[in-house]
Amino acid sequence: MTTHPKIDALLLHHEVETFNASYAAALDEQRLTDWVEMFTEDAFYAVISRENADKGLPVGLIYCDSKAMIYDRAFALEKTSMFAPRYLRHIIGNLQILGPATDGELHARANYVVIQVLYDRPEAKLHQVGVYHDKFRRIDGALKLAERRCIYDNLLVDNALCLPV
Amino acid sequence: MTTHPKIDALLLHHEVETFNASYAAALDEQRLTDWVEMFTEDAFYAVISRENADKGLPVGLIYCDSKAMIYDRAFALEKTSMFAPRYLRHIIGNLQILGPATDGELHARANYVVIQVLYDRPEAKLHQVGVYHDKFRRIDGALKLAERRCIYDNLLVDNALCLPV
Amino acid sequence: MTTHPKIDALLLHHEVETFNASYAAALDEQRLTDWVEMFTEDAFYAVISRENADKGLPVGLIYCDSKAMIYDRAFALEKTSMFAPRYLRHIIGNLQILGPATDGELHARANYVVIQVLYDRPEAKLHQVGVYHDKFRRIDGALKLAERRCIYDNLLVDNALCLPV
Repeated sequence: MTTHPKIDALLLHHEVETFNASYAAALDEQRLTDWVEMFTEDAFYAVISRENADKGLPVGLIYCDSKAMIYDRAFALEKTSMFAPRYLRHIIGNLQILGPATDGELHARANYVVIQVLYDRPEAKLHQVGVYHDKFRRIDGALKLAERRCIYDNLLVDNALCLPV
Repeated sequence: MTTHPKIDALLLHHEVETFNASYAAALDEQRLTDWVEMFTEDAFYAVISRENADKGLPVGLIYCDSKAMIYDRAFALEKTSMFAPRYLRHIIGNLQILGPATDGELHARANYVVIQVLYDRPEAKLHQVGVYHDKFRRIDGALKLAERRCIYDNLLVDNALCLPV
Repeated sequence: MTTHPKIDALLLHHEVETFNASYAAALDEQRLTDWVEMFTEDAFYAVISRENADKGLPVGLIYCDSKAMIYDRAFALEKTSMFAPRYLRHIIGNLQILGPATDGELHARANYVVIQVLYDRPEAKLHQVGVYHDKFRRIDGALKLAERRCIYDNLLVDNALCLPV
């Protein structure tokens, strides 16, 4: 760390932004094993509608409370036959570092847009739009997600099961 | 400030980016009072079509030349009955700091996309796409918008009145 | 350059991000001469479908192996009559600096979304979504693109010829 607090804040912001870019690339390129490795062993990962989140309801489309469960969820989808081939593309923006919380974890948020293209169609569609509410923990020097709650404004159900976002 | 001009430029870029992330979050979460507080007392805020802006025509969809007027405009919409409930989500990207102008204000620009979801529909739509042309002024150490001209390429009129962008 | 490697990495990331913001602004504002000047004399520029890129097929929609060819391609389109007037808006995000390669060039990637609006229609459409695979070279102190491969997930052919992305 440097000795200038503003520069330290900037370096931390950059580290989280870099993490999010890697996270997006792993999902966009369907490297699901790499994606799973970005979480802590006890990570919480959920995909919840904004409507439910606003009401404090925890019910989500995806709900995992460990890395093992995240792993199962990710690869279960790959083996499903009712799954038309598609490309996904993430844009993650508007990152906000919300400061360290009392639990020693780093809280952050960022908006996300996932754009979907079916192999046999020229049109790209807004598959999912929302916000990540995150808690990061540093393990052996590297940031990992201890919690990512994906709160979506919409979900284009289309002919898709829900992929991780 | 540090003594390295490149680092100072980076810190300033980061400060404006952080401002824009807060601005987006305030609108996305419908915290309109917080949004209004991001402007100076004498702020100019307008939402103008690219066609009119290119021709130098000032006529806009929204046109406010003080914070009081911005406040009125923001809350007038909330009291309108012909307004279907919806979620908005901003992505602000491609920030460019254009350097300090002779008037002592910081000039900047950024592209924006506003995605809209009606409560009762699964589809997200590109509500508005455009560019912010901004002038920032520092007041008591914090950046405020002295001017934001939102030049939109399109406006999906839909069943919406125009919300702030 | 400073003496802190993390700060140097951050400054380099910022320099590429600034480059991409200028690149997007040049295309969005149809300043094609400015756009062409962002490439090296021997630059490679191609727009290739993800399907072909994944198979290692070099065939693309646009394929230029020099700045002169990029120039010709850019201005050929302007003289075509079958070209409905439109606005484009780029959002470039998720920048990743992939480190210097053995050839001394800086490798990077970033996701992009190009949104298109036809003059006479209110709807914005996702024109093209994809990823830039880039090699940058420093010439007289400034970054230039020695290679940009635009790999698109989709292409909305619409009534458009293909513009540079």
